[in-house]
Amino acid sequence: MTDKPEAKLWGGRFKGGIDPLMEAYNESIHYDRVLYAEDLDGSIAFARANVKTGRLTEEEFVQIMGGLLRIKVEWDTNNFRIAKGDEDIHTANERRLGEIIGTHIAGKLHTGRSRNEQIATDMRLWLVKRLRELEGHLAAFLQVIADRAETEISVVMPGYTHLQRAQPIRWAHWLLAYGSQFASDLERLREVRSRVNRSPLGFGALAGNPFGIDRAAMAKELGFEGLLPNSMAGVADRDFVVETMQWGMMLMTHMSRMAEDLIIYSTSEFGFVQLSDGYSTGSSLMPQKKNPDSLELLRGKAGRAFGHLAGLTMSVKGIPSTYNKDLQESLEPMFDHVKTVTDSILIATGVVNTLAINPERMRAALSPDMLATDLAEYLVRKGVPFRETHHISGRVVALAEEEGRPMDQLSLEELRSVDTRFGEDVHSVFDYTRSVEQRTSAGGTSEKAVREQIEMLRALIKSEGKVAAVKV
Amino acid sequence: MTDKPEAKLWGGRFKGGIDPLMEAYNESIHYDRVLYAEDLDGSIAFARANVKTGRLTEEEFVQIMGGLLRIKVEWDTNNFRIAKGDEDIHTANERRLGEIIGTHIAGKLHTGRSRNEQIATDMRLWLVKRLRELEGHLAAFLQVIADRAETEISVVMPGYTHLQRAQPIRWAHWLLAYGSQFASDLERLREVRSRVNRSPLGFGALAGNPFGIDRAAMAKELGFEGLLPNSMAGVADRDFVVETMQWGMMLMTHMSRMAEDLIIYSTSEFGFVQLSDGYSTGSSLMPQKKNPDSLELLRGKAGRAFGHLAGLTMSVKGIPSTYNKDLQESLEPMFDHVKTVTDSILIATGVVNTLAINPERMRAALSPDMLATDLAEYLVRKGVPFRETHHISGRVVALAEEEGRPMDQLSLEELRSVDTRFGEDVHSVFDYTRSVEQRTSAGGTSEKAVREQIEMLRALIKSEGKVAAVKV
Amino acid sequence: MTDKPEAKLWGGRFKGGIDPLMEAYNESIHYDRVLYAEDLDGSIAFARANVKTGRLTEEEFVQIMGGLLRIKVEWDTNNFRIAKGDEDIHTANERRLGEIIGTHIAGKLHTGRSRNEQIATDMRLWLVKRLRELEGHLAAFLQVIADRAETEISVVMPGYTHLQRAQPIRWAHWLLAYGSQFASDLERLREVRSRVNRSPLGFGALAGNPFGIDRAAMAKELGFEGLLPNSMAGVADRDFVVETMQWGMMLMTHMSRMAEDLIIYSTSEFGFVQLSDGYSTGSSLMPQKKNPDSLELLRGKAGRAFGHLAGLTMSVKGIPSTYNKDLQESLEPMFDHVKTVTDSILIATGVVNTLAINPERMRAALSPDMLATDLAEYLVRKGVPFRETHHISGRVVALAEEEGRPMDQLSLEELRSVDTRFGEDVHSVFDYTRSVEQRTSAGGTSEKAVREQIEMLRALIKSEGKVAAVKV
Amino acid sequence: MTDKPEAKLWGGRFKGGIDPLMEAYNESIHYDRVLYAEDLDGSIAFARANVKTGRLTEEEFVQIMGGLLRIKVEWDTNNFRIAKGDEDIHTANERRLGEIIGTHIAGKLHTGRSRNEQIATDMRLWLVKRLRELEGHLAAFLQVIADRAETEISVVMPGYTHLQRAQPIRWAHWLLAYGSQFASDLERLREVRSRVNRSPLGFGALAGNPFGIDRAAMAKELGFEGLLPNSMAGVADRDFVVETMQWGMMLMTHMSRMAEDLIIYSTSEFGFVQLSDGYSTGSSLMPQKKNPDSLELLRGKAGRAFGHLAGLTMSVKGIPSTYNKDLQESLEPMFDHVKTVTDSILIATGVVNTLAINPERMRAALSPDMLATDLAEYLVRKGVPFRETHHISGRVVALAEEEGRPMDQLSLEELRSVDTRFGEDVHSVFDYTRSVEQRTSAGGTSEKAVREQIEMLRALIKSEGKVAAVKV
Repeated sequence: MTDKPEAKLWGGRFKGGIDPLMEAYNESIHYDRVLYAEDLDGSIAFARANVKTGRLTEEEFVQIMGGLLRIKVEWDTNNFRIAKGDEDIHTANERRLGEIIGTHIAGKLHTGRSRNEQIATDMRLWLVKRLRELEGHLAAFLQVIADRAETEISVVMPGYTHLQRAQPIRWAHWLLAYGSQFASDLERLREVRSRVNRSPLGFGALAGNPFGIDRAAMAKELGFEGLLPNSMAGVADRDFVVETMQWGMMLMTHMSRMAEDLIIYSTSEFGFVQLSDGYSTGSSLMPQKKNPDSLELLRGKAGRAFGHLAGLTMSVKGIPSTYNKDLQESLEPMFDHVKTVTDSILIATGVVNTLAINPERMRAALSPDMLATDLAEYLVRKGVPFRETHHISGRVVALAEEEGRPMDQLSLEELRSVDTRFGEDVHSVFDYTRSVEQRTSAGGTSEKAVREQIEMLRALIKSEGKVAAVKV
Repeated sequence: MTDKPEAKLWGGRFKGGIDPLMEAYNESIHYDRVLYAEDLDGSIAFARANVKTGRLTEEEFVQIMGGLLRIKVEWDTNNFRIAKGDEDIHTANERRLGEIIGTHIAGKLHTGRSRNEQIATDMRLWLVKRLRELEGHLAAFLQVIADRAETEISVVMPGYTHLQRAQPIRWAHWLLAYGSQFASDLERLREVRSRVNRSPLGFGALAGNPFGIDRAAMAKELGFEGLLPNSMAGVADRDFVVETMQWGMMLMTHMSRMAEDLIIYSTSEFGFVQLSDGYSTGSSLMPQKKNPDSLELLRGKAGRAFGHLAGLTMSVKGIPSTYNKDLQESLEPMFDHVKTVTDSILIATGVVNTLAINPERMRAALSPDMLATDLAEYLVRKGVPFRETHHISGRVVALAEEEGRPMDQLSLEELRSVDTRFGEDVHSVFDYTRSVEQRTSAGGTSEKAVREQIEMLRALIKSEGKVAAVKV
Repeated sequence: MTDKPEAKLWGGRFKGGIDPLMEAYNESIHYDRVLYAEDLDGSIAFARANVKTGRLTEEEFVQIMGGLLRIKVEWDTNNFRIAKGDEDIHTANERRLGEIIGTHIAGKLHTGRSRNEQIATDMRLWLVKRLRELEGHLAAFLQVIADRAETEISVVMPGYTHLQRAQPIRWAHWLLAYGSQFASDLERLREVRSRVNRSPLGFGALAGNPFGIDRAAMAKELGFEGLLPNSMAGVADRDFVVETMQWGMMLMTHMSRMAEDLIIYSTSEFGFVQLSDGYSTGSSLMPQKKNPDSLELLRGKAGRAFGHLAGLTMSVKGIPSTYNKDLQESLEPMFDHVKTVTDSILIATGVVNTLAINPERMRAALSPDMLATDLAEYLVRKGVPFRETHHISGRVVALAEEEGRPMDQLSLEELRSVDTRFGEDVHSVFDYTRSVEQRTSAGGTSEKAVREQIEMLRALIKSEGKVAAVKV
Repeated sequence: MTDKPEAKLWGGRFKGGIDPLMEAYNESIHYDRVLYAEDLDGSIAFARANVKTGRLTEEEFVQIMGGLLRIKVEWDTNNFRIAKGDEDIHTANERRLGEIIGTHIAGKLHTGRSRNEQIATDMRLWLVKRLRELEGHLAAFLQVIADRAETEISVVMPGYTHLQRAQPIRWAHWLLAYGSQFASDLERLREVRSRVNRSPLGFGALAGNPFGIDRAAMAKELGFEGLLPNSMAGVADRDFVVETMQWGMMLMTHMSRMAEDLIIYSTSEFGFVQLSDGYSTGSSLMPQKKNPDSLELLRGKAGRAFGHLAGLTMSVKGIPSTYNKDLQESLEPMFDHVKTVTDSILIATGVVNTLAINPERMRAALSPDMLATDLAEYLVRKGVPFRETHHISGRVVALAEEEGRPMDQLSLEELRSVDTRFGEDVHSVFDYTRSVEQRTSAGGTSEKAVREQIEMLRALIKSEGKVAAVKV
């Protein structure tokens, strides 16, 4: 059965029926209903402002507001009935308003207004709320990282580059490596949110409002920080969604790298960490398996988050100015993106908070050749040019391999066979804690430098601003 | 309330509870339930094959099959009740089977089997069905294009390059330009489907089946064309989804370009075509508007289709071999991709089928300067080198612009002021139909060449093979 | 001929030869040579700081600095000879320094330093410079837009939604729609640059510097704004490149939409604008053609800019923490991205600056049905609910279509046959300038509202901060 | 200095000068020169065909061919001088032809031809050659995999799912897991190449050739397999590049996963494989490091390969039909893509060919709990339902963990404390070779099943067709 266009908000000049498949292809109510509260809030602000323009009387406004609030309750209590023809949330709410207060007054609500500005307003209001929640979740995650780093500051483990053992580091330093990346995400989140939080309300379809509506008053009522400057851009820009996805995609990239590390660290071969049962699953075939599904999902969902951005960018890139229906393709990805990132932060918080570490396995994985740089630096301190010490130390590594003994088991004599400048004190080099404690410069892995990082993270969480990088 | 791992298929060695959020993050039943029929079919084939291996008696098999068929009816009639702990469709079906026939027999079904091979089997079976349907839809769309091209073969319109008027073409030629691209999509679809249609069943978790199961017999029962060759790859490869998305993304790129043309052609300024009301919508603010929403959605959804591919590729690219939970991220995008492409083909078919064209506006947009190439070719036929005739014709264009008259209104004398080789017969050049009729080479816009294209399209639809390109 | 690893900076423990193809696959000198100046500056700062740590004497520092400055001159004057084995810019510069001042002193330069921190430092220094230049180019482009909007403020044209004629707007308002988007790009650019401009120098390979180097002093010397907080993240984070590409991709999306508009506006059918010859090209076959190649390249290069982001994100997403060689894949895309965006801004500036507009064609394309909203608003001002006036106006549109006359040619009687509330004054509605002048709310298309936008743009260009959105 | 448009092929109607930056933004000669041979071959075929159309005399053709062949020698010997105004390879070659044989004859070459069809022809010819080379490289890579799998068929190692130890497998089975994926790439390559290898020559700018040129004869001369069917699509379709990139991106995804495995297997903690020095590099700071740079580049370049596809798809998706200059953005990515994939296959071949494996470390990493599934299957063979045996085996795993002894060290009594059905023969289960030898079904890890895979791979390499999957 086809739907009559006359029943639509825009049905005046249409004659033919609509292909029912087109109806389904076109409608958005099954997902944009999520925006009901923002849509109603926007309508209240718009109606209130139209008292000042003279388009509504005080009495009409009161009736409209009352009707809209009643609709809100219907949605809140899951009693709103979507009717045939409710192609989107704006249509549904206005249709219902007419039923409640009569179409004579309800029909005045949309005066000088367009769904183009409505959807942009609804989306921005909704997204700002979600970004506020995300800020809270992200701060809590950083808190867990900072706390854990402090508690376990004495644990030393191998640091890897190219996934090859490189130099000893503190486990806390590893935690803070990700802490610093999520801190940067928090900083960016605040910038993005400020840009999302600008109002398009009062822009009409593209040309502006003809009744002198006070956009600033409406924006203030709705909690916006500022006004968008141009009506044509403001109704059709989805930069705020793209930018949110850019932010989320970057954060998920950090998640993916952290998950990758932890998946490797929780193999039997590494054995540095053990996921809590609460974030693991088993195998339907192999009884012994305990799989890090949570981490794999974090890693996998980074792809999903990027897919949202790729898809939306491609949709937006290819269109001319102002509103084109292509932009409807921004809604579902936005909803899924926000859910993906939110869930992922919460899961990651749980994972990091409940992870068991195995300091013995970490220490056992420290091998003397990881101190080859320290050995080179030993000679540097005796005045040998580093480039030369690097080669000397390399030859010591080769000697140890040939001898089949770890480097710290070579005798002083053997070391001197490589270079005579090695002295009695050379064996003091083979101490992992000494090695990490030498990295005292800002951002290094010594205890002092790690504690400074924890303090910076804590300061950022409390502040409203940027990563408290040491200013120079 | 946390869920007990003991209730899971894999719960033997787990002690702690699962974070309820992790439960939600991990489960897939709310979308993989779509695969219920394929999952049950796969289980029946697996059980039947296990009679031959001796793992099941005939009697046990009959009971299992009976139970599975009953579950199918429950799903078909919307009576299947998902229980707490049914994390995926495999778990749900096996749990229910145990309730129906008792766990003693039901517990034998999964012998030597892994969910890894099950999900790969289910996805492939499901996808092959959808690709068969898509082939039908695509063929119907090509039929509409071919029919329309034949019916309206006499309509001539401006052809554009760089969106600037270039040379006259047949409207049917424009239709067939897209026809040839969708024909290529049909050809590729057949190749992709053949690769999707290979069986992983009998691969176990990664190492193969230890009871000598007959993979070929199972594959035959399920309608697969062949067997995948390696168990480790077969349980973890999502190439068949990636490839389907590559196919869909290419098709949607063609949709986008066709939509872009039609959106432009349906502007007031061009006015070549008019969308049927059934595929248009109006404006909530501007009463005069009739918007080509269907076309804009076709164009916009090309982005969405690409987003699926981008996201999944990124998820798959970053993982080691065999099954990793990241692969779960292939399901939702696959479902949405198939729906997006299917709906889009159906909408495009409706749009093209019901589109009104305006041959008068098309003809009115043909301007004499579009015959500048023909004018150059006139001189070519008199032996003047083309490069020279191109410049001569360019000067005629410039002269017409200076005179403010169309080129065909220039007198012979004026033309001869540019080049004396213009003869009495030069004005025969200024005939749009003559121009298109000269493009007789294969693939050109003359009537004969257009009819050949229509025949090729019809042959492809009927065949099972490739685009019937003229072989050389 | 294979290259001996002994000749490399890291050759101490290697015995076998390197596959020459691997040599080529691995080396980066053919593109990272672009960073020579930054690499040398970083080395000078590093050497100076190592006087304070006691690793270099004043005399050694002076020699090192002298050598490095001489190398700079060699690069500047194209006299630097890349040698076999110079796999990257760091290796090349250090090798050359050894030749100039002897390896005994040159060999001390790299003390406690890693190429991991060097390349991150070089890239950030280089990128900050480029972003400064880009800020200048972008400001100049905005200047052109503002100037042109002011000069041509009186030109009225059709505004489109869904590429269908919607409402009259000022041409200047169209210009400022893009102006506001590029203004947002300028605002974001300043945020991104601030985050790029943080120093990783002194981080070593991953664990920090063991000689107590003063990172803040080095950062200050090099012009960094702050220090990165964690050594493991700082050597391996390519967020600053990803973020730059996110920024560039967004800007190019704006370019693409602007180009799309102008390509359509420069068709024969629209005829609103004419590209200057300086940004057009012709056809090798069709003498009459003048193609908007510049605009098409702007549009096409938006894809290229996104491709950089997609590729790099995928490379970075799939790796564990700290430096992995995958990160080398960030360099070439970064260089190409910056060039693409820079060139595109300059081209767009030239295009907009030299574009000819055709106000007559614009005005001719204004059709009375574009005032249907104004007609509805006429009745709104008489107290009729908008929803009703929308339908009334829709019926007037339909009546005009049936009568085959434009809406403004309908008699009062005919209008009253639709609705009796139309009065004598109704024909005043059919005035395009009156229509645009009614859109006085902030961001609308009235002259006053447009002038405010111009002022905001000018203020932003002069300031260092954010888009001067009206704060609420 | 601006360039005069008159000097261009299309300069007839242009008056103003061109912005020099636009000149640079627009030109393609610095990269499309790579296509010189294909461009000249296409011109020869085109000229030869124009003898039959009567546009050229035999004598003119001989002169043209002679000139073109001389130009080829100039390019081959690096003696071709690009002149100011040579914006692309077609322009350069035609300009030079005029210099050699005089413009009177040279000026006839382009008769009825457009650069649109030329570039499409050149690109296809070039790409087909590269795809043929790639087929050879890929076959050689598969040969190395097959040979190595055969030689080392007796080596057993842990198989992983979720990167957790799962079941024992043959090392050859791991090799063939990737072998089967690259085999699928080979199959797809053949399909793609066939579609690339279709001719657009004779299509003109968009409407076809007006002189009755024999497209089939030209296609045959050039080695094309067939003709593209529609001129408008044929000059503007870049599907063949997109499809090549889809193919290359899939192959690189396989590379990335293989590299990921090998990077992990070459850590100190796993120690299963050791990269040859020829594909490793060291650290400038840490003397002991040996880094798998080749593998990391393979993994990283998968991102780059995807970036090409993402960028080009976005460029193509947003344009109307026929040629638009956006399409120029297909060239550079195509060149870089082909180079990236070609180099990567060659590097991977070298890596796999020279890799040292450590069978002792592999065997040492096999732990008895990996036989938990076999233990469950032991009871299955005694008639216990699998679901029950899975739980029993899980309890054995837990018991072993509690006892702190590996599962195979539990006494029969202890096993019977879990389930009394364990018999004397239970300890035969704890044999890794027995475990792999039980996986005899097609595609499993038993020796027989592995040898079948090797044979299939060898058959595919020799054939011209599809993966020789067992047909059902």
